[in-house]
Amino acid sequence: MQLEKSIIEEANHQQQAAHQRKYDFVAGDINGLDTILKKLGDFNIAIPSWALGTGGTRFGRFSGGGEPRSLEEKIDDVGLIQALNRSSNSISLHIPWDIPKNADVIKAHAAALGLHFDAVNSNTFQDQASQELSYKFGSLHHVDKAVRKQAIAHNIEVIKYGVALDSKALSVWLSDGSNFPGQLNMRGAFERTLESLQEIYEALPADWKVWVEYKPYEPNFYSTTIGDWGQSYLLSSKLGDKAQTLVDLGHHLQGANIEQIVSLLLMEGKLAGFHFNDSKYGDDDLTVGSINPYQLFLIFNELVEGMDARGMNHATGIGWMIDASHNIKDPIEDLIQSVEAIKIAYTQALLVDVTALKQAQQYNDVVFAQEILQHAYRTDVRPLLAEARLRAGGALNPLALYRAQAVRNQLIKERGAKAVSTGL
Amino acid sequence: MQLEKSIIEEANHQQQAAHQRKYDFVAGDINGLDTILKKLGDFNIAIPSWALGTGGTRFGRFSGGGEPRSLEEKIDDVGLIQALNRSSNSISLHIPWDIPKNADVIKAHAAALGLHFDAVNSNTFQDQASQELSYKFGSLHHVDKAVRKQAIAHNIEVIKYGVALDSKALSVWLSDGSNFPGQLNMRGAFERTLESLQEIYEALPADWKVWVEYKPYEPNFYSTTIGDWGQSYLLSSKLGDKAQTLVDLGHHLQGANIEQIVSLLLMEGKLAGFHFNDSKYGDDDLTVGSINPYQLFLIFNELVEGMDARGMNHATGIGWMIDASHNIKDPIEDLIQSVEAIKIAYTQALLVDVTALKQAQQYNDVVFAQEILQHAYRTDVRPLLAEARLRAGGALNPLALYRAQAVRNQLIKERGAKAVSTGL
Amino acid sequence: MQLEKSIIEEANHQQQAAHQRKYDFVAGDINGLDTILKKLGDFNIAIPSWALGTGGTRFGRFSGGGEPRSLEEKIDDVGLIQALNRSSNSISLHIPWDIPKNADVIKAHAAALGLHFDAVNSNTFQDQASQELSYKFGSLHHVDKAVRKQAIAHNIEVIKYGVALDSKALSVWLSDGSNFPGQLNMRGAFERTLESLQEIYEALPADWKVWVEYKPYEPNFYSTTIGDWGQSYLLSSKLGDKAQTLVDLGHHLQGANIEQIVSLLLMEGKLAGFHFNDSKYGDDDLTVGSINPYQLFLIFNELVEGMDARGMNHATGIGWMIDASHNIKDPIEDLIQSVEAIKIAYTQALLVDVTALKQAQQYNDVVFAQEILQHAYRTDVRPLLAEARLRAGGALNPLALYRAQAVRNQLIKERGAKAVSTGL
Amino acid sequence: MQLEKSIIEEANHQQQAAHQRKYDFVAGDINGLDTILKKLGDFNIAIPSWALGTGGTRFGRFSGGGEPRSLEEKIDDVGLIQALNRSSNSISLHIPWDIPKNADVIKAHAAALGLHFDAVNSNTFQDQASQELSYKFGSLHHVDKAVRKQAIAHNIEVIKYGVALDSKALSVWLSDGSNFPGQLNMRGAFERTLESLQEIYEALPADWKVWVEYKPYEPNFYSTTIGDWGQSYLLSSKLGDKAQTLVDLGHHLQGANIEQIVSLLLMEGKLAGFHFNDSKYGDDDLTVGSINPYQLFLIFNELVEGMDARGMNHATGIGWMIDASHNIKDPIEDLIQSVEAIKIAYTQALLVDVTALKQAQQYNDVVFAQEILQHAYRTDVRPLLAEARLRAGGALNPLALYRAQAVRNQLIKERGAKAVSTGL
Repeated sequence: MQLEKSIIEEANHQQQAAHQRKYDFVAGDINGLDTILKKLGDFNIAIPSWALGTGGTRFGRFSGGGEPRSLEEKIDDVGLIQALNRSSNSISLHIPWDIPKNADVIKAHAAALGLHFDAVNSNTFQDQASQELSYKFGSLHHVDKAVRKQAIAHNIEVIKYGVALDSKALSVWLSDGSNFPGQLNMRGAFERTLESLQEIYEALPADWKVWVEYKPYEPNFYSTTIGDWGQSYLLSSKLGDKAQTLVDLGHHLQGANIEQIVSLLLMEGKLAGFHFNDSKYGDDDLTVGSINPYQLFLIFNELVEGMDARGMNHATGIGWMIDASHNIKDPIEDLIQSVEAIKIAYTQALLVDVTALKQAQQYNDVVFAQEILQHAYRTDVRPLLAEARLRAGGALNPLALYRAQAVRNQLIKERGAKAVSTGL
Repeated sequence: MQLEKSIIEEANHQQQAAHQRKYDFVAGDINGLDTILKKLGDFNIAIPSWALGTGGTRFGRFSGGGEPRSLEEKIDDVGLIQALNRSSNSISLHIPWDIPKNADVIKAHAAALGLHFDAVNSNTFQDQASQELSYKFGSLHHVDKAVRKQAIAHNIEVIKYGVALDSKALSVWLSDGSNFPGQLNMRGAFERTLESLQEIYEALPADWKVWVEYKPYEPNFYSTTIGDWGQSYLLSSKLGDKAQTLVDLGHHLQGANIEQIVSLLLMEGKLAGFHFNDSKYGDDDLTVGSINPYQLFLIFNELVEGMDARGMNHATGIGWMIDASHNIKDPIEDLIQSVEAIKIAYTQALLVDVTALKQAQQYNDVVFAQEILQHAYRTDVRPLLAEARLRAGGALNPLALYRAQAVRNQLIKERGAKAVSTGL
Repeated sequence: MQLEKSIIEEANHQQQAAHQRKYDFVAGDINGLDTILKKLGDFNIAIPSWALGTGGTRFGRFSGGGEPRSLEEKIDDVGLIQALNRSSNSISLHIPWDIPKNADVIKAHAAALGLHFDAVNSNTFQDQASQELSYKFGSLHHVDKAVRKQAIAHNIEVIKYGVALDSKALSVWLSDGSNFPGQLNMRGAFERTLESLQEIYEALPADWKVWVEYKPYEPNFYSTTIGDWGQSYLLSSKLGDKAQTLVDLGHHLQGANIEQIVSLLLMEGKLAGFHFNDSKYGDDDLTVGSINPYQLFLIFNELVEGMDARGMNHATGIGWMIDASHNIKDPIEDLIQSVEAIKIAYTQALLVDVTALKQAQQYNDVVFAQEILQHAYRTDVRPLLAEARLRAGGALNPLALYRAQAVRNQLIKERGAKAVSTGL
Repeated sequence: MQLEKSIIEEANHQQQAAHQRKYDFVAGDINGLDTILKKLGDFNIAIPSWALGTGGTRFGRFSGGGEPRSLEEKIDDVGLIQALNRSSNSISLHIPWDIPKNADVIKAHAAALGLHFDAVNSNTFQDQASQELSYKFGSLHHVDKAVRKQAIAHNIEVIKYGVALDSKALSVWLSDGSNFPGQLNMRGAFERTLESLQEIYEALPADWKVWVEYKPYEPNFYSTTIGDWGQSYLLSSKLGDKAQTLVDLGHHLQGANIEQIVSLLLMEGKLAGFHFNDSKYGDDDLTVGSINPYQLFLIFNELVEGMDARGMNHATGIGWMIDASHNIKDPIEDLIQSVEAIKIAYTQALLVDVTALKQAQQYNDVVFAQEILQHAYRTDVRPLLAEARLRAGGALNPLALYRAQAVRNQLIKERGAKAVSTGL
């Protein structure tokens, strides 16, 4: 299903007066309002193809209804989100869960909804039915060269799918690691991983990047071969300029200062992009901004400052993507909430008085530096987001409209109450 | 399959001389050797029915071969372990994964292998195909009374299965919790859980216990309704004398002093028993003693001291059970390693010079108190375990014999390379 | 020094128009505005006497200037804060750092600034020069009865000081614990602590409470005898109705769900009150709200809900106090920021649409429950705080006025650049 | 005081028979015994000059008696340890706590006790009385170039002291960081630190190294400018071959896989050495091996494997040093326990059957790989350490002899019960 433009316009019309009052109030205090609205309009967050279905844990999975049964239906769901919030204009595919059999047809389907294709993701953390060798003991780091070859070939195949879809990056998350001391020679594992990545790197088109993700644990519980930013950085710096480090917010030990990691990766020109989610314990993959929204703001504060320092375009300089698991929420609603939280944090970061902050830092005026950040953070920027959406043809209140239109019920009617999203 | 007694005897015969040398050496330094060997002989650890198959994570599962296809085959596997180590004489069932259709037949099958049935485990963290209402938002804490009723009825049914098998305890682990702030009124959730547990408590036979497990997170990632020992204690103290707290080693926040929790629960008469495993991050469910064996020893040090202070029988005073997930190891081998690690820690704790330790504590002689503990811990007690096994008719080296006999290959022949354990 | 009322009025006058615009905007969307402003006006947070000086770490301490040199000057500093924010009308004394030699004089000094005395705090975590026996190995849990007696006597003496000052509670934080396995019999330590607390409990006046604080580690790094809320609860429930559990936000393992602890302690009638601060790692004692303001809001959400459920007065039902360490900020500025952050969180909690939230919870509408909480949290409530301050005679912008008046410079002139606060 | 050689010999003589029995037993199972004993004999761990006095926490410090009052007395204490265990033949100085006024005299004093000087440590985390500018807001990363210059000059001065003492390395631990978001531009802080370190690097003699330590938090509680191994690696790789990364076991977030970090730093030729201690929570600075001895073994397993792979000499290839805080133990006893724990772990690592382990890894035989490691770890290697000490002229049981000789009492007589170690 799609949302008619008239429905959105009608809803906006009804909310216009209330919106205008709020917008005028906030706008009254802001310098450079047009620039901010422009940046907000340009800023899009990719939706991963696996995020449209219900996720689960090792203890079980509780299906939702109306889940997309095909890649086309996943694209449709992203189209719905994009129609509502005008901030989700691309989709990130996961191979082999979502193999585009006919790339041109798929591209056209997406384009009709205003969507294109972001980074493609390979998968060597599961065995597929058709697969010859098992990844039980890893893929690119495997002691057996034949397994490594298979995994390399898979990644190169994923690049080919991506090329056909006009993607420009391969995103590699390796679960390779060990569950027990002694299982692995960790140096050997690292060296084999580097060697494998070099072969994949060779296969990258000239205008492509490879994004090397890191994660400290899960599904391996003793060591992970690309376990922290330092290890990813080491790999990407040995690989070359097309390799960069991908930061997933949930992929850190408790207490890690993610802001600092972001700042340094930007400094080194090695920040590929983000997988957004939130967490209280580990890789909980919760809705962005649902647990610690201030941390999200602090990260965006470093992003904005660091990208500006290098003259990078906020919208296109690095990759922005959600990577969450929607275990108990309607995935579309969850994604709408996540995009909203990301753009709130981004907007607050844009409001930071950079000149004053630099001066406070220069004088070690810690109290005032905190005041500057918290003033931006405490500002209610939602009317600015709404205004940017309004100007782009989206809904003033995407979630309310989604509910008012009973979209999920229609999807259940179309797809059934027990449809299971491909790949889950 | 079963291991012929003669095979074990033959293997032991070949290793006898080497064993004797080691045993004589260690025995030469130990007071009360007979008591220790007697206690070692009496000490058994229950094997959970779900631990005989290969486990997985939310990212996937890599099957092993020869997995048990039925409850009978699971019992057979425990029988193999028991034949080898003489320390695993009971099995803990999980309902509904292992419903004993004919209890008498199952009991006889187990008895023939020297096995009986430990605590029975209920499951309200998954939806079963036959189930009317969903546990997506919890079971005993659910806002909807009908769901709570269903979950209560399930627990009472589990007790009935247990009674038929001569079990004496119901083990309750609730995954009930919330993924997001606001989802739950936490006080209400606690009160409903208490109310539900009270109904289950009423259904307990006179000589039964209910063991209330706690866990801080996973599969819920914001709050868990029975999240720590204090919450479990609060419930079990409100329920009555038949209710106690079950400690799973992996169910704690990082840094928790589990030894202290054990000590205090024993003090209050509220320690039900243990789910043994090991972990580096969260509920990693790794082989017992594979990550932090000293902590395991410290826990046993508190157990021995605390049980002795209350005149409790080590073997029967509380429940001992493994609860691990065998993702990449042969489950039988993993369980043999786990039982060995538990009994090593127990033996080391028995070696602690309690009189000297008390005196060191009385004088705040911290250095010497550490020396006393570490002397026991650094002692190589493996020959004592071997001797106790030998006397009980088990194998001097269970793991080596299991491998020498190529047991797994035989199981694969019998059951197939792709058999999947029921319930996984 | 004191701030003349006219100075505050003059500053407010200049900011009045800008404030009015913001206040009108926010007020326009709020139901029950008068009640909220009344509650805000009533809500005060006690300032601890040790928070007016510069704190340090084990690695060193970098003095600030103009620190109070006496109890009278500490009271003066609290008086300054109270004059500015009208939300800090009491002071919590630490004995023996701040022994009031003449209670009547001290009370009069405080009363003249609109201040009274909150809970008194004992100290058995340090040795004082005059002290006969050492607390090196603990105080109320010590193996030596003579040390316990000394510590008990100290606590009873602190109560006497408190009585003379019209305090109504004794706050007990014990650092008692152990640094190494074996050092302590943890059960014995608990039992001795209980016994000691019972003697102190006996000495409480009829209308007094004793607040039992918990903390997992530091200054002991293996075990702490009152280490978590469960242990404090166990003690306070054995002691009786006058004993309750005090929550310090920094006294938890990483990942602890403090909101849930608060909710359950309130349920049991055992929540004594709060020591507010913020932290990223351990007991970092940072400015309240500087690291995770959303968590602070979630805690207040539980407080408001739980206190309302028991008909408790928000302002007086439990104790509110800051406990932070001002290592690099001007302590007065830090305290002004902390009080502001606390009251922002409180106000946001008051804005939560309780009826809608209960309904969302009843329907397991997780998405909407989050929306309700986040709507309250995202609202910029600072104009409400400012209005409440204005009505109470405080400053619209306390921090700006403090700086504009160059208060610290005046304090340095009065007290010197190298004054060291007593007790540090 | 010094321990007469005859006293040691006499004590050894009495314990000889018991020792011989144990040694013969263990030796009987070991291949390459002479090589192992040779390596054990060569292996020394430096003692830091600040470790001879009693440490404390921010909450207080409980003095011990007989603490060294001067650098000479500190050297004497190390001499005592070395006489007893023959494994502590060097001392690591901290400037300005232990400025050697006359290097030749100090060297001679040390040499007479068989000691030399290991790495020298600079201190820019405290302000000294004589110091012009403050390090309150950092040193090498400071925004003010004058402060950076002062800190650089101090480091260069420390090198000069080290040259005079024949040290070969400068150990730099920076506490530079921030307590609050916004306080610091983290990129700028990193760049200024690099620049400062470059100036220090320039001042290094040709045969010197600079060891760059990292630490995630404390005394700063939001960010630390050299916060993890990745940041230290980034700095040391930009600096050049003379710069390497120093690993302190307590300087990691909970759950960090230190073994893996060690393995990768060795791979890159960037592992400078170790600061040994143990911890349960943060930088607890407890006795080595008192909390998690298996982790210590696993680290040594990586060290031995990684150094052998590069043909490095175990004893001299990297720097070995204890860095602990002796808050409640006699520092000398604590250090004897720590050295023993380190050498136990080292010996166990030497016992690992490397050939079998490599094969198990090649076949992904996880169970057997664990067996191999745990077999080495479970072996009671204490008789091997005792034999190595015996051969080197040390005591069979250093701690027992230290106590039997009542060394501390003599030190108290010489130095007083309230002596305070310089620098604390």
